[in-house]
Amino acid sequence: MNQNYPQILSHRQKFPALANKIYFNYGGQGPMPEASLQAIYNSYQEIQNLGPFSGKAGMWVENEINLIRGAIATELGVSPDTITLTEDVTVGCNIGLWGLDLQAGDHILLSDCEHPGVIAAIEEIKRRFNLEFSTCPIMATLNDGNPVEVIEKNLQPNTKLLVISHILWNTGQVLPLAEIVNLCHTVSPTPVKVLVDAAQSVGVLPLNLAEIGVDFYAFTGHKWWCGPGGLGGLYVSTKAREELHPTFIGWRGITKDKSGKPIGWQPDSRRYEIATSAYPLCRGLREAIAFHHQWGNPTERYEKIKELSRYLWEGLRTISDIDCLRTAPPEAGLVSFKLNNGKSHQQLVADLEKQGIMVRNILDPDCVRACVNYFTLETEIDKLVAEIKSICPKI
Amino acid sequence: MNQNYPQILSHRQKFPALANKIYFNYGGQGPMPEASLQAIYNSYQEIQNLGPFSGKAGMWVENEINLIRGAIATELGVSPDTITLTEDVTVGCNIGLWGLDLQAGDHILLSDCEHPGVIAAIEEIKRRFNLEFSTCPIMATLNDGNPVEVIEKNLQPNTKLLVISHILWNTGQVLPLAEIVNLCHTVSPTPVKVLVDAAQSVGVLPLNLAEIGVDFYAFTGHKWWCGPGGLGGLYVSTKAREELHPTFIGWRGITKDKSGKPIGWQPDSRRYEIATSAYPLCRGLREAIAFHHQWGNPTERYEKIKELSRYLWEGLRTISDIDCLRTAPPEAGLVSFKLNNGKSHQQLVADLEKQGIMVRNILDPDCVRACVNYFTLETEIDKLVAEIKSICPKI
Repeated sequence: MNQNYPQILSHRQKFPALANKIYFNYGGQGPMPEASLQAIYNSYQEIQNLGPFSGKAGMWVENEINLIRGAIATELGVSPDTITLTEDVTVGCNIGLWGLDLQAGDHILLSDCEHPGVIAAIEEIKRRFNLEFSTCPIMATLNDGNPVEVIEKNLQPNTKLLVISHILWNTGQVLPLAEIVNLCHTVSPTPVKVLVDAAQSVGVLPLNLAEIGVDFYAFTGHKWWCGPGGLGGLYVSTKAREELHPTFIGWRGITKDKSGKPIGWQPDSRRYEIATSAYPLCRGLREAIAFHHQWGNPTERYEKIKELSRYLWEGLRTISDIDCLRTAPPEAGLVSFKLNNGKSHQQLVADLEKQGIMVRNILDPDCVRACVNYFTLETEIDKLVAEIKSICPKI
Repeated sequence: MNQNYPQILSHRQKFPALANKIYFNYGGQGPMPEASLQAIYNSYQEIQNLGPFSGKAGMWVENEINLIRGAIATELGVSPDTITLTEDVTVGCNIGLWGLDLQAGDHILLSDCEHPGVIAAIEEIKRRFNLEFSTCPIMATLNDGNPVEVIEKNLQPNTKLLVISHILWNTGQVLPLAEIVNLCHTVSPTPVKVLVDAAQSVGVLPLNLAEIGVDFYAFTGHKWWCGPGGLGGLYVSTKAREELHPTFIGWRGITKDKSGKPIGWQPDSRRYEIATSAYPLCRGLREAIAFHHQWGNPTERYEKIKELSRYLWEGLRTISDIDCLRTAPPEAGLVSFKLNNGKSHQQLVADLEKQGIMVRNILDPDCVRACVNYFTLETEIDKLVAEIKSICPKI
């Protein structure tokens, strides 16, 4: 593989976080480009200069919200009126989960690889509304088997909602979302809605959600997009919006009469937004998204991510103490692997951090996850592989 | 009135926003002290330096969360385990509203001065759970009448929750919260819980919530505390916590077993927190709270606010085109007034902003609201009064 080193080194220099470490935690939180940090600082200063609470400051905020909503919509291949800004991906999932008028006896199907926070939300919704839910074994299809068939087998006549990740956060598997949505929407007797946890796919996969036809797609800006923590969003299709009620409600989601009384919802996905947020983050995320485009379009970046994750996967396979979870090269930037000598993954992660190399451990399946982005260096991967080789005998 | 001008001028110089305007919108959003802005910038840099996703960065975040939780608890006179960090006051209200297991036919009572976003949330909760709600006429008690009696008259045998502001955001009236809570908790046959919208009271009133015995108290850091927008909180009493279920749920609120599966709630008010937030705001708010203590304690600040709002109220009463809503001096920092010549309040607000003077209009009751903080200058108040006198004949 040939990396254009001068170009990528100059691009990487714009990330202050990469100056003092070897970073493989893009799936946890991406490092922010300097332009994104500066945009946040400048935004704070502008808001203080204009207000902070004034007609002019209000217009500044509205403009920034419109701009980030538009930028996100472009990345997702949808129109801006379908994008709700949220604090994080989990809030987006909660909006989708709580807002459907599910009735006692309705069933939610989820994969066995969903994030614990989302599982806990579904458990509470089950309790409140007397629903049912069950889990289908997607994890086992990482190397063999068809996730669409697994879902099909596990759908029930009373299933109203499928909750699934586009890229599984633990094993890194990319699910065939278009096929899954097609299955769920055409299954009889009534279509099953699809809520996607897109924490690991937004900023990685080239996306055209309008084409996929998914109902709800919750994401965050602070992982693969390398934006600030605290700003994410939820896509709700125009059709699904008709059936999704707002749950947590505030002034941003409502329309008012002349005396300020609430009289309805915003006509678009703003209806799920609540109240005051950290608005400087809007410009911070916008700068981060624009920064990636300076290097390449989403397809070019995804191809580069796959090249680099394959390089990491191949390197890890040279270590006798390591088994990669996947038997074929990864389909995205997440590369998960196990120690086959019974040693502690947590210890390996801690030892690597002491050497300035950041990876994380995952509890289910018990493994270590290293993520590569399009600007990861082969030399970083070489160092990670060498360091694991060196540490393994010692832990 | 004697202001210690050299001292207050030097204190005010630490607010960049006050350098180029005359500011009376503390009830909308407070200007941030320079130390608070710097704390946010430094926090972003520290997070990038340590991670952003790493063991060390995680410890940094946990420490900052603990520190701001403790600082808030001290201001409110409660223990840190009762404080939930939220994005804003409205999210705090929603946690309280959605989390009680209210049943069909239960009744919620609210005042006629609650914020439209909160009213809209109650309307949706009514629809989802077949509840009832009604409004009691507190606005009319601004100059005459007893709000506690009004509430007592409007409580019904099936009332389970009172939703009320501590300081009314439109008229500036301070409600006798301890008496209201006492009434609600002792009314037969079952105690009525009290959820307070504290948007206008936190940072203004010296508080001892443990003594008042309120159940839920939702607040924000970005108004009278002058912290960053996007960070607020909710106090839930230890007793009320037993009956308040989490609604929007994420990894911050749950406990997990060894394989990462959710098995319960955090033992304290963290159970209502959701997922990734803009953590640099924690240090920003902590610096803002500390900054106010450099000038005086909460009681000293509240006394100064009342002195200054009385001075503004007296000045406004010298303008023939103006009627103050209150016939007695204000009890806090909000001073609301009307044009008695039928002219547009919105126009007056816009004309004042053109002169660099920030106030806002309110729709119900139709009025203008000017807020003074403890560091407002008499000379600013004089300018506001003079400018209104000069503008009134022209609009």
